[in-house]
Parts: sequence; C-alpha cells; structure tokens
Amino acid sequence: MQAEYAAMIATPSAERRSARRGKRPDNPLLKLPFRQPRNPWKPLEILAADQIEHIHAASMRILEETGIDMLDDETIELWTRAGAKVDAELRRVWIDRGLLMGLVAQAPSSFRHHARNPEHTIFYGENAITFTPAAGMAYLTSRDFPRRTGTLNDLIDFIKVGQLVPVIHTAGGASVEPQDVPVSIRHLRRAIAVYTHTDKVTGGAAHGRVIPQDAIAMAKIVFGDPLPAEPVLSSNINASSPLRYDSRMLGGALSYAREGQIVTVTPFILAGAMSPISMAAAIAQQNAEALAGIATLQIARPGAPCIYGGFTTNIDMKSGSPAFGTPEGAWAMAIGAQLARRYHLPYRGSGSLCTAKASDAQAGYETMWTLWPAVMSNTNQIVHAAGWLDGGLTISYEKFILDLEMLAMFQHFLGGFEISDDTLALDYIKEVGPGGHHFGTAHTQARYTTEHYQSFVVGDRQAWENWELAGAQEAAERANAVWKDLLAQYEKPALDPGIEEALREYAARRERELINENLYEKI
Amino acid sequence: MQAEYAAMIATPSAERRSARRGKRPDNPLLKLPFRQPRNPWKPLEILAADQIEHIHAASMRILEETGIDMLDDETIELWTRAGAKVDAELRRVWIDRGLLMGLVAQAPSSFRHHARNPEHTIFYGENAITFTPAAGMAYLTSRDFPRRTGTLNDLIDFIKVGQLVPVIHTAGGASVEPQDVPVSIRHLRRAIAVYTHTDKVTGGAAHGRVIPQDAIAMAKIVFGDPLPAEPVLSSNINASSPLRYDSRMLGGALSYAREGQIVTVTPFILAGAMSPISMAAAIAQQNAEALAGIATLQIARPGAPCIYGGFTTNIDMKSGSPAFGTPEGAWAMAIGAQLARRYHLPYRGSGSLCTAKASDAQAGYETMWTLWPAVMSNTNQIVHAAGWLDGGLTISYEKFILDLEMLAMFQHFLGGFEISDDTLALDYIKEVGPGGHHFGTAHTQARYTTEHYQSFVVGDRQAWENWELAGAQEAAERANAVWKDLLAQYEKPALDPGIEEALREYAARRERELINENLYEKI
Repeated sequence: MQAEYAAMIATPSAERRSARRGKRPDNPLLKLPFRQPRNPWKPLEILAADQIEHIHAASMRILEETGIDMLDDETIELWTRAGAKVDAELRRVWIDRGLLMGLVAQAPSSFRHHARNPEHTIFYGENAITFTPAAGMAYLTSRDFPRRTGTLNDLIDFIKVGQLVPVIHTAGGASVEPQDVPVSIRHLRRAIAVYTHTDKVTGGAAHGRVIPQDAIAMAKIVFGDPLPAEPVLSSNINASSPLRYDSRMLGGALSYAREGQIVTVTPFILAGAMSPISMAAAIAQQNAEALAGIATLQIARPGAPCIYGGFTTNIDMKSGSPAFGTPEGAWAMAIGAQLARRYHLPYRGSGSLCTAKASDAQAGYETMWTLWPAVMSNTNQIVHAAGWLDGGLTISYEKFILDLEMLAMFQHFLGGFEISDDTLALDYIKEVGPGGHHFGTAHTQARYTTEHYQSFVVGDRQAWENWELAGAQEAAERANAVWKDLLAQYEKPALDPGIEEALREYAARRERELINENLYEKI
Repeated sequence: MQAEYAAMIATPSAERRSARRGKRPDNPLLKLPFRQPRNPWKPLEILAADQIEHIHAASMRILEETGIDMLDDETIELWTRAGAKVDAELRRVWIDRGLLMGLVAQAPSSFRHHARNPEHTIFYGENAITFTPAAGMAYLTSRDFPRRTGTLNDLIDFIKVGQLVPVIHTAGGASVEPQDVPVSIRHLRRAIAVYTHTDKVTGGAAHGRVIPQDAIAMAKIVFGDPLPAEPVLSSNINASSPLRYDSRMLGGALSYAREGQIVTVTPFILAGAMSPISMAAAIAQQNAEALAGIATLQIARPGAPCIYGGFTTNIDMKSGSPAFGTPEGAWAMAIGAQLARRYHLPYRGSGSLCTAKASDAQAGYETMWTLWPAVMSNTNQIVHAAGWLDGGLTISYEKFILDLEMLAMFQHFLGGFEISDDTLALDYIKEVGPGGHHFGTAHTQARYTTEHYQSFVVGDRQAWENWELAGAQEAAERANAVWKDLLAQYEKPALDPGIEEALREYAARRERELINENLYEKI
C-alpha cells in the first residue's frame, strides 16, 4: 500500500487550472507537482543506539518515579482503569514502563490523512515528509504595514496561498489568530473559511470538549456520516511542561482520538525553564511527556492515529526569550525523530522556526537551522514550515514566501537525479572535447528549462549591475511582490453547494448557541 | 597521532590576550576555543556505493577515451615518462585507469598544515573540518560605502579579523584582491601582510613558476631552511573545465608539490556550460579532472599532499549566471566528498557560496544550502567559509560576520552534548515536579552562561518590543557594528623582528626585480 504513496504525483492542479484559463502560470513554484517528498538517504542520527536507550531509560524512570499530572477527571479515570498508580486528588499518574510501552505499541506506525480532494490525501510515516504552514500566530507583519493583530480575512489569505502552492501539503487554517472574531465562535468561522477555500487536508483545534464536537459534526457534513475509515481531521496538543497536561488539551485529544482522528502530541519545552537546562534532561522529559500523552489516547481508543511531536529548544539566558533556529533545537529535532522511530511512531517537527523579527539574513539562516535537521531526520509532519517569525508570535507575508522557496528547494533536492548513459552524456563530453563549451549542445538545449531547480523570483540570480538597475532589492522586497502575485492567482476549489449551505447553517445555529460562552472555561 | 588532533583544543588565544589587557572580551565569539570541529556522525551520502562506482567508471572512460589537455610542456613530459598516451602537439593526455589509480594511491589520506604558531597547526583528513575565509574576491561591499574594488588595506582588515576569531582556522590572505598593488609584486605585498598580521596557517597562490619561488623563499625565512617536514604552505588550483589545465596552474602546482607543499586541485564546473547540463555528467567530469590533476603532482613527487576539490554547481538558465547555494550544488558537494573518500583523499568544498548581492534572507538561506551539506559531508577543507556574496565577485563586511555566526553554531553543534546522570538531572526533575519551574534550580543556575550556544549579537533574541525600541535593526546592520568592534580589538601576533626585517628585505629586492614584469605571461 505504501508504494503507491512513494510515487504519489497528482497532475499538478495549477497546470489544470491555468489550462482552463488558457494561460500557463509563470511562477515556477506553481508548476511543481503536488507530491510528498521522501528522504531517500539514511536519516541524520545524532545519538548512537545505546544513547537512545539511555534517554529511553531516563524517560521511563521519570514516569515511574516522578509521575505526570493529568489535570482531567476523565483521564484520571482512564489511567485508574488501565492499572496505573494514581493520586486522584493531585490528579497525578505514575506509569510503569511495561504498561506504557504496551499502550504505545498499539499506536499505528503510519496512516493516511484523507482530504476532500483525494489528490491531496497525504501519508504520515516511513520517510515521507509533509509541509504545513505556520499556525497559531497572534500577529501579522509585512513590509506594507506595521505589525498588527490578525483578522479572519488575513487568515483566509494564508489559506488561499496554502491551497494554491503545491509544495504546501495542508493549507493550514490557523496561520494567524482571527482576533476580530469572538473566541467562542472562532472555530466555526475558521472551519467555514477552511472548507470553502481549500480542498487540502485540514485540522481544527482539539481543544476542550465543545470545539472538537463541532469539528466532528462539520466534518460529517463534508465527508459523510459515518466518517470515512481514514482520519479526516488532525490536531496538535501540547503538554504544559514540565510533566503536566491540562484538561483543555486532554479533553480535545480524547475527543479526536475516540473518533479516530489524528492527534499530534507535542511537549513544548524550553530547556532551562520547563525542564533542566541540559539537553539530555530536556529530551528525556520531552520523551516521557510525549509517550504519556500518546498512551492516554491508546487507552481511550486502541490504535488511535497519533504523531510523536518534538518541540524542544533552549531559552536565551541573556534575554530570557525562547531561542529558535539554534544548535540545541537542531539536536532536539533530530533526536526526537530517532526516538519516534524507536517507538514506531510518525514524527512531527517544525520547519521555519526562528527568533528573527524581520525577514532578514537571521530569518534565513535560523530557518535553515530548523529545516535542514527536520528534513534530514525524516520528519514526517513538518509543522510551521512557512511564515514563522518572532519566536512564533508573528507571521509574515514575506517570510512565508521565502520559506516556500526553501520548501521547493528541498522537494527538488530530495528527488535526487538520474545516473544513466543518457545523463552521463559521455558522447557529448567526447564530442565537445577539452576546452570546449557545452551551452549549445543538443544535450544541454533539450534540458535547459527543466534540468535544474528554478528559483521563483525570490532568489535573485542576476549580475550585480542588472540587480542594481532593477532597484537593488533585498529578498524580502521581492517576496512581497510574489505574495501579491500568488494571492491574485488564487481560485476557489469546487465545493458542493448543498454541503456549503449545510455547513453555514450548522455554524449559524451553533454561533447563536455559543456566542456568550467562554470556551476556555468549558471543558 | 591523529588522536591528538581529535582533541586539539589550544588555550583560547583571545582569552590570554584579554588577560594581558586586564579585561575579558565581551563578544562570545572571542571566547570560543581554537579547535577543529569533527563531524561525529555518519557523513551525508547522496549516492549508494554502486552509484559511486558508476560515476567512477564514467570518469575513467572520460580520461581514457576523451583525454585531458595539459597545456604545459613540463607536464606533458611527465606524463610521457609515466607511460600515458600523449599527443605532444595538442598537449593532450589519455590516461589509463590502472596508471591513474596507481598514482592517486600515492597521495596521503591525511596530513597536517604547520602554522608558525604551533597552536594554530591544523589537520586535513578523516572527519576533521577547517574553515577558511572567502578568497579571490574582486570587489568589496559594506553598508558604509558603495561596492568598490579592493585594496591592500582592505585585505589586511580581513586578515586581522580572521586572525582574531577562533572559528576561522586560517586567516586567509586573499579575501579581496589588492588592486592598488601592481600584479607583478602583489604576491610579495600579500605575503608580508600575511606573515606580519597572522600566525595561523597560510597560503600563497601556486600560480605560474615565479610566484611559488618567492612563496617558498619567504616561507624559508619564516620557518627555516630547509623547510619543516610538514607542509607550511597551501594553495588551490583550478582546472579550466572542460578537461583542461593551463600552464599557469600546472606550473604553480608542480612548484608547490615538488617542495612538499599542499595543493588543492579543484575543477570549477558550471553544469550546462563547462560540462553537460546533467549533474551525473558534471560530477563524473569533475572527478576525472580532479584525479588527473592530483595524479600529475604524484608523478612529480610521490606522496605530495593533495586535497581533492569539488566546486560544481549549475548555471541559472534564465540569466546565464552561475547559481550558488542550490540543490544541485548541495548534491555535488556531498557526492564530491563521497568520491574523495573512495580515493582516500582529503576533501575540499566551500562554505558561504551564494548568488545574493545583499546580506539579506537570500544570503542567509543560500549560504546554509552550501554550509549544511559541506559540514554534514565531512568536508575537510571548507574554503570560502565566510564573506562570499554575488557569486564570488564581492566580499562583504556584514556577510563575513553573519557567516562567522554560522561557523560558530556548527562548531557548537558538532561538539554534541553529554548524556550522563549529571546531565539527565533526574533528581531535579523529581524535585521540581510536575508543573514547576526549572529556571531557579541549582542545576540550571550553575550552567546558564555556558550550557547553550550564545549568539554574538548578530542573532537578535530580544522580544519584538525591545527590538523595536533598539531601532528595529536587521541582522546586517548589527553585523556592521560587530565588524567594527572586532577590528578594533585586533592585536598583532608576535613575530621575531629579525624575521620580519629579512622578509621585508627579500620583498623589496624582488619588487625592484619584478615591477615591470607581467607574471601572467611568465611561466
């Protein structure tokens, strides 16, 4: 079954769309196929096998000796029934390694995430990689305006570009918080925005017990009731490290898991604050927390699709701020992947993390300190793969575009190249001979538009003089223009009008019911 | 013997210098040890073993069937004596694979490069890595002035910063061409500049037959006559691809090799121009050229220390310009390392290559597309590791500093971290418990200034508001200030006044002899 996904190359939808319009898109980014890259090489392994076992053993001792707080009555009940040692008053659980590993072993090692456009269905597992836009940002910035809080229209713009560009595998739906919409109905407006603007796989927040109910109900409108056997929703939950999950996260995750939907379980650890400062301790604690979260969901529904999430980095001890795109973060990213492989679980890492506030050189190199180890470690779900700035508080138009260039480069890089009589071209080498020139040969001419990765305007490759004549623009300026150009090319994917009407009716009814609720208090 | 180099950590010279001055340097960059990083992990392998053999076989066929031009009478004589098929009129050589591999096998797999300060002696081979500044740039740019041609004073500034910062292993001596000095005497002024401003390992251009004579003569003044058994000079030569070496390069390389000095042999191939456009062909041709160059030097002096150089990338087919920091360049970098390992030769790659004209996001990410594969492939000699902009035509103050941040990050990254009872800190995890905070623990407090990589001002880690209050500077602006700060902290290393006088006398005499010569015509 997996083999079909290794070669999953749909007809590029942008090409079809442009064919309808009677013109080809001129941005090379839009000519790429929608395809999940696979890392054909041996994944980066920072730790030796015995060191991985050393970390594993430490994680087991943490859960056995220190325990973990599950601030949720239903979860405490689950663990009591499963046979763990529980302090119901503290809502603390101590999990024996035999019990834990037995539960974790029930989680599947790979699964698909079903999209409403089957060409956009994706696969999590093995050496397959997916790229997801930045999510959850409070602010938006661009060269066109000062930093401000996000709105629903901003969110829709990011969904549109995510839908349009083939290197993005999910159009997100949470890139920026729509702060012009009340919290109690935000998930409904967001779901409408997602289902009407993208046919790629989709998420929704598994937070609390009300929001997931609505997410499931709306998914049933789109995908049919009962839902397909394969999951159609995915969400991420975070531990409140150290060693604690709150009821909002546990309630949401249990709601998704019970319906067979995907939950990524991600401890968020800044070494020196939420864990001891040494990376060995931070990673051992991350591992304990991730496994405890996944095991919880396996009690609720054995075989529930879970992704092991890693999000460990250091804090800058001078400013006290989280530091992203660091050597420490790179270690943690790669070691998290090694641990996930040890437990036969798909792995979630991140892509564009940086501490930079501008789309400058720092943004460029910090992002590469995140994306290189993520890709080379076979990270199956690369979250925050485009747009992240400012330690995750701010999303940027320009950074989003710059990051797309990097994702496209990685897709090309991982594709490798052919070695054959044809590509070795020994006849041409002989014919041109020493001291000759290959530009005009039939071999080169036949391949010159397709052989190499083509930068899509962000990467300027002109001579200095031409670049100066063109205004000596920095990359972020060019990215701004690309953002606008892409947004202008967006077209809505088809959606059955009956489904859209049913979605809107459902949302309208629920909005009336929820408008005065505080969902953060409602579990 | 190698073991001593694996652990080679000299007392940081900046610390000693500052101790003399009675103050500690405040830039974390200056507190790093002078140390050669080693890649402790399995190197990145893009091709499988049978694919490497496929490339190897193609390279052998190229040298046997197409041959290679050696536009130098002495070289033609060497190959005739060695038994190759030679066309003396064309000055073309066809090299049988048995003859070729027998010669290449005589080159050492590792060796040291002796510095006049023994603490700065470096090792080429195995998984050891060295970082060398950008070299040979025609222009200089900075935020302080428009792009202009380089001068001797500019060159000296780069040597000073290279000498000062411990992450750079050679202070270069060719970062920018001193175009205010006549070509015929440039090598003499440059040698004086190098010997009086740095005690790190040094080069000199192995070009033609006059310049190397002066380089050797001046090295004897500094290191003694006869020269030490270990090489004290290194230089790079390029093939004039496809399949051609000119007399200037061959004469220089032979002059160095005969004296036992280090020659890096680097074909410079832009796929689609100097080779067929397909990467398989470009790499097979690179391999043929590099091996033919190294074999030539082994005829002249069996055992001469040679480094296998790779410098293959693509041209941008839209602009016709070379493209650096590309997926194609990354493949070639890593595969070059695989080939060098196959022949048991040290490997040279590059570090900061990019096509960007400004120190912007493109400069950041393109450089990481060069440096990540270089480091992860165990590139022993990472040339152009700092300062490169504009496809290699221009060096930049700001880019130099930004690149130093990346080199420092890699040095930290490759150092890994300890996994022990102490660093796993299970007692602290238990003591703090679920939901607690680790910032104030004794474990964290004892390590908070030393545990993690500290950015040296270029990487801003403040909160957005503080960054705005501080002027919302982009990374390049901060780098400009760091450049000036470092330059101001430079101090000359000690040099025996008798040696300095002898060097200056030699150079003065030779300048009188050479001032009217055209060394480009003089072989």
